[in-house]
Order: sequence, then C-alpha cells, then structure tokens
Amino acid sequence: MDDKRYLQGWEKLKEVDSEQGERVIESLNDISPDFARLIIEFGFGDIYSRPGLDLKQREIATVAALTTLGNAAPQLKVHIHAALNVGCSREEIVEVIMQMAVYAGFPAAINGLFAAKEVFAQLDKTLGHSEPEQPT
Amino acid sequence: MDDKRYLQGWEKLKEVDSEQGERVIESLNDISPDFARLIIEFGFGDIYSRPGLDLKQREIATVAALTTLGNAAPQLKVHIHAALNVGCSREEIVEVIMQMAVYAGFPAAINGLFAAKEVFAQLDKTLGHSEPEQPT
Amino acid sequence: MDDKRYLQGWEKLKEVDSEQGERVIESLNDISPDFARLIIEFGFGDIYSRPGLDLKQREIATVAALTTLGNAAPQLKVHIHAALNVGCSREEIVEVIMQMAVYAGFPAAINGLFAAKEVFAQLDKTLGHSEPEQPT
Amino acid sequence: MDDKRYLQGWEKLKEVDSEQGERVIESLNDISPDFARLIIEFGFGDIYSRPGLDLKQREIATVAALTTLGNAAPQLKVHIHAALNVGCSREEIVEVIMQMAVYAGFPAAINGLFAAKEVFAQLDKTLGHSEPEQPT
Amino acid sequence: MDDKRYLQGWEKLKEVDSEQGERVIESLNDISPDFARLIIEFGFGDIYSRPGLDLKQREIATVAALTTLGNAAPQLKVHIHAALNVGCSREEIVEVIMQMAVYAGFPAAINGLFAAKEVFAQLDKTLGHSEPEQPT
Amino acid sequence: MDDKRYLQGWEKLKEVDSEQGERVIESLNDISPDFARLIIEFGFGDIYSRPGLDLKQREIATVAALTTLGNAAPQLKVHIHAALNVGCSREEIVEVIMQMAVYAGFPAAINGLFAAKEVFAQLDKTLGHSEPEQPT
Repeated sequence: MDDKRYLQGWEKLKEVDSEQGERVIESLNDISPDFARLIIEFGFGDIYSRPGLDLKQREIATVAALTTLGNAAPQLKVHIHAALNVGCSREEIVEVIMQMAVYAGFPAAINGLFAAKEVFAQLDKTLGHSEPEQPT
Repeated sequence: MDDKRYLQGWEKLKEVDSEQGERVIESLNDISPDFARLIIEFGFGDIYSRPGLDLKQREIATVAALTTLGNAAPQLKVHIHAALNVGCSREEIVEVIMQMAVYAGFPAAINGLFAAKEVFAQLDKTLGHSEPEQPT
Repeated sequence: MDDKRYLQGWEKLKEVDSEQGERVIESLNDISPDFARLIIEFGFGDIYSRPGLDLKQREIATVAALTTLGNAAPQLKVHIHAALNVGCSREEIVEVIMQMAVYAGFPAAINGLFAAKEVFAQLDKTLGHSEPEQPT
Repeated sequence: MDDKRYLQGWEKLKEVDSEQGERVIESLNDISPDFARLIIEFGFGDIYSRPGLDLKQREIATVAALTTLGNAAPQLKVHIHAALNVGCSREEIVEVIMQMAVYAGFPAAINGLFAAKEVFAQLDKTLGHSEPEQPT
Repeated sequence: MDDKRYLQGWEKLKEVDSEQGERVIESLNDISPDFARLIIEFGFGDIYSRPGLDLKQREIATVAALTTLGNAAPQLKVHIHAALNVGCSREEIVEVIMQMAVYAGFPAAINGLFAAKEVFAQLDKTLGHSEPEQPT
Repeated sequence: MDDKRYLQGWEKLKEVDSEQGERVIESLNDISPDFARLIIEFGFGDIYSRPGLDLKQREIATVAALTTLGNAAPQLKVHIHAALNVGCSREEIVEVIMQMAVYAGFPAAINGLFAAKEVFAQLDKTLGHSEPEQPT
C-alpha cells in the first residue's frame, strides 16, 4: 500500500482534469486496476506533482509530445481538454500542435488539429455555444 | 525569391539562438543550401514568428517533441541551448524531459537527460564555471 | 501576405490531386485556416514545386514515407489517390507498400495495403467497375 | 514456387493461431495474394519455425513489440489471441503490456490494455462466460 | 520519502543486473538524481517487482521493445546484459532480436544484433574467452 | 536449404550494390549468419527481385522510408550509396530526403541530409574528386 502517494496523485489528477481523468481510470478498472493506480501514483503523484513547471507548462509539453507520437489520439484528446482546464487558450493549443509540423511532420500536426477540432466541438456542444442545427 | 519571409525568419532565428542557428544553417550549406533556407523561411519565418505563444512556451513544446522523437539528439541539444537562451531555467528543461517518461518511455527521457547534461557541461566549460581539470 | 507562393502551391496541389487536396484544406479551415495555407505554401509551393523529381517519383517517396510512419492512415489514403492521379499504376503502389515490410515491418505494410484496398474499392465504386451488389 | 517453405509456414501459422491467421491471409488475398504468401513464408516459415524460442516466448516478444509500436492495433489483437492460444495466461499478457509503459510510455500501454480488453471480451462472449446483458 | 518502495526497487534492480543498473543510476545522479530514483521506484519497484512474469520473461519483453524502438541503443545493451544475467541464453536473445524484423523491420533488427554483438564481445573480453590479440 | 531463392537474392543484391551489400552481410556473419542469409533471401530474393518497380524506383522508396524512420543511419547510408549505384543522381536523392521534412519533420530530413553528405564526401574522396588537403 502506498496511500500517501496515491492520494497526492489523485488530488493532482483532479486539479488537472477531474472529469477526463476519472473516465480514463474507470475504463482501465476491469482490465487492470493496478495500472489505473500506477497512472495516478507515477504520472500524477510522482511527475505532475513536482515543482519546477506549472500545470499550463506541463500541458503544453504533453500536447506537444502526444501530437508528436501520432498514435495516441485518445490521450491527446484527454490532454487537449486538460490543457484548457488548467488555463491554456484554444489558440495556444492550436499553436503548439501547428508547431509540431516542424518536428514530427505535417500528418502528425494535421491529425493533432483534427483531435483539437473534436474536443472543441464537443465542448461547444456541451456548453451550448454552437448549435446551428437548431434554428429559431 | 522570398526575401521578406527569409528576413523575418532570420531575425526570429537570431532571437531564438543566433549561435546554434547559424551553425546548423552552415552545416547544410554544402549539401543543400535550399534546405537551409527553408528551415529559416518555414520553421522560423512561418511558425516561430507567429503570435499566440511566447518563445519560452515554444521551446518547452520543442524540447518535449524532440525528447519524444528519441532519434534527433543533435536537434534536441540545439533546442536545449535555445530554451536556455529564451529564458527557460535548467530546472524547467530537466522537468520537461523527465515528464516525457510518462508519454514516450524512460529510454527517451534518459537519453534526453544525457543530452541536457552535455549541453549544460559545455556551457559551464565555456563560461568557466566548472573547470576541475585546471587546479591551482 | 505571400500570394505568389500560395498561388504556386495551389497550382501544384491541383496538379497532384485537386479533389483530395481541396477536401483536406477545407477540413482544416475551421480549426486552423493558417495551417491549411501553410500546407499549400510549404508542402506544395516550396517542396513539390521543386525540379529534380517528377510527381510520380515524389508520390512513390510519399507513399513509402506514410506507410513507414504507420500512424497517418488518412494522409496515406490521400496520397495513394494522388499517386494514381499523377500516373502510378495500382501495381506500382502495391509494390511500394509491400517493400516497406523490409524497412518498417509487416504491420506497417499490411495496414498500408488495407489503405490501398480501401482507396481502390472506393474508386471502383465511383467508376462503376465493381458493383456486385447491384445485379440485373 | 517455394512449396516446402510455404507449407512449413502454414503449419506453423496453424499451430500459433489457425483461426486468426486464416482471417488475415484472406483479408489480403484480393489486394495482394503475394504478400499474404510472404507473411506465411517469411514470418512463419523462416522466423517462427526456428528453434531457440518456444511459441510462448515468441508471443511474449511479439505482444511487447506491437504494444511498443502503438500503431498496429489490428495486429496486436491478433497476437494477444495467439498468445492465449499458445499457452500464455491473460495475466501474463496484461503484465507484458503494462511493462511497456516503462519503455514506450503510458499511452502505448493504455492502448495495448484496451486491445487486450477487447480480445478478452470477445472471447468471453464467444465462450458464453460473461453475458450480463441477458439476465434471467 | 518513499523508502519502502525505493528499497524494493533497489533489491529488484540488483537481482536483474546490479552492475549495469548502478552504472545507469550513477550517470544520472548529477543531471537528475530524482529521475534516477524514479527509475528504481517505478521501473523496478512498481513494475519488475510484480508477480505474473518471471525475470526471464520480462527481459524477453524488454529486449523486444527496445529493439523495436530502434533509438535506444544504450538501454538495449543494458537489457541484453540483464537478459543474460537472469538466465536467457545468447541464442534466445539473438532469436528475439531477429524476430523483430517481422514487426519493426530489418534495420531495427540489424541494429539490435549489432548491439548484442557488442555486449557479447565485451563479455568475452572481460571473461578472457576470446583474446586473439594475445597469442602464445 | 533454399538455394535457388538465396542465389536469386544474392544476384539481386549484387545488382543493387555489391560492395555495400557484402559488407553488411559480413558484419552479421559472426553474430547471426542465419539473419544475413534472411536479408538476402527475403529482402533481395522475395522483394527486390519482384517486377512492378525498377531498382531506381525501389531505392527512392527505400531512401524515403529510412529517412522517415530516423533511427537507421547506417542503413540509410548503404541505400544512398545503392541509389547512386542503380542510377539516381545526387540531386534526386537530396530531393527525396528534403521532401521527407513534410511527412517526418525537419530533424529527420536534416539528419538524412547529413547522411547523404557523408556518403557523397566518402565517394568524392575515393574517386579523388575533392582533396583540398593535398595542395601542390
């Protein structure tokens, strides 16, 4: 048992993005609850809880990394959502993804932009900002 | 000819890291001067010159991307140097690289830290901070 | 503004594959019209417009690259279509993808072949070549 | 013609996982029957037929590789099925995938676990083990 | 402080390969002692200490992953050494690396074999098995 | 034994680049002569011997793939040499590598150009074209 580290990780995960985080953890609970716990303990307890970078800087780095990987669309969407949650603007997120064209190529950047488009559209829908399909 | 864009790129490259930038451009001049020009025009004229992110945020994203790629050690060293140049602290750079363990695995992060170690050691040597080999 | 370069890129994109190209550009227009413009200016204005390789050679190189990346299925399909458009035969495209098994492994080649299968089937359907589902 | 090698490969493929193997071969038959043959001849005739590792060890290595690649979900599912078929337990497969977090990052491991979850659920459904949707 | 987990990790690292492990930890101590600690705590405390796979199976998976990555030569050499240390034969290691040609391509497998060649040669030299340079 | 396929592969390898090919095969002979044989049988016997693409097209695809991988510098150099050998010009090779910036990012293209620079310089030295170090 490693309760303190788990609790620290869980607090940090909630600060980053409680809604998305809980969904990921839940989705792993039947295949490997131990791995869900390790994401919280290592990812959020050991790494994101460290001083030295604020959460906005951490999410910029993560969006850059996940766009570069190019094979982690579900995680990229989670962290685009998280980036907004910790204070990044949509413009900043789009800029980070665009910049990845230089380092990881245009397909990685294009697919990253499509992920952002999806997250933004989902948010607009939830928030009721853009519903052109329901006139009058 | 696309002089305006080239000049804008060149100014931005100098702002990011004139010393390292010029070295990369020179090293490409005999194999492909056109490609050296495209790095300036596209990378620095089209992308880094955009508003929306400051240079410190851009270098955090780039260090994250190059650590994640794992096969671009020369470029990672150039951008660790550039990150320091635009105002990142050594601690911030080390934190970004460490965080990549979560997304790209420990080997990518370890090799990224070795790159940082090399850049920092080279800087210390140039600046005369650590010269244990010259006693008395 | 960089109208001349944009127009040159746009002309080249239309030569490569006007139908697919316009679709990609459109799909980016709401999330990042600037990035759509950069694809035209850099990808098609700066690179594909260069002499030194004909468009058939360029598409062979691109199909090889996208099959190797293995995480860019939408772009691979666009360029399989473009390769046909600039004069590659289906056999040549299949050979390029098969050859990637040597360099990028069998999964990359298999997934590349599935992408080709989809593009060819779509074309056959559009052209009315294979409609076994509409007998009599 | 290379009948002996083909037959040896085919026998080995059937030993590893006849059901999944035949499905992959069939799915390639219209786009490239030659490539389907090469998978059997090279993959199973030349490599898996070699002494030096038993099939369980070979599937552990393959599940590790495909989880690491991160862009080969269909092949990963085939080999999770094959790993079970040659004697790996579900627990062993989950452990191999979890371990990949260390080398390829958490997104690769998470997506690998989701692939395992899907394969296990499909098997349970086929075998009638878990049908909570059909009460009474 | 997380002493118990650190100690468990350290014990496991020593079991896997004390000589190589200590060298890696030391090499990180000046650039990031915290990261050296995390390798022990997460990699060896959280992952390698788990039941479900024996160390020989774990090293087969790791050699497969590092060969597949293709950009982690130092870590691959460490784990080829570790694989021998926990009971893999040279033949088994060579077989795992060869098999990666199927999934990650021939360059990854060739470069993996060169890494094995280097580790084996170094061991032979240390053990005095092959010293053709000392005749008589 | 599979003598016919081996001989066909060997003949094709000599046609592609006998000098470089033999060196690669030799370098593998002590660590895994079986793998050296498989490169000849599969790579050159099964793949490069196929009709459908000429050797110049095959080398364009291979240089594109190896530049994209970014972690296979020794193999990229071998195939830049081979590309010249089967009739590609230096300009064509440089164009293929430059184009990879679009798909795999600038670091991959830059490192590919450095590989080309090395191969061209080595050839010039061997051929006595550029010997500025021997004045008078």
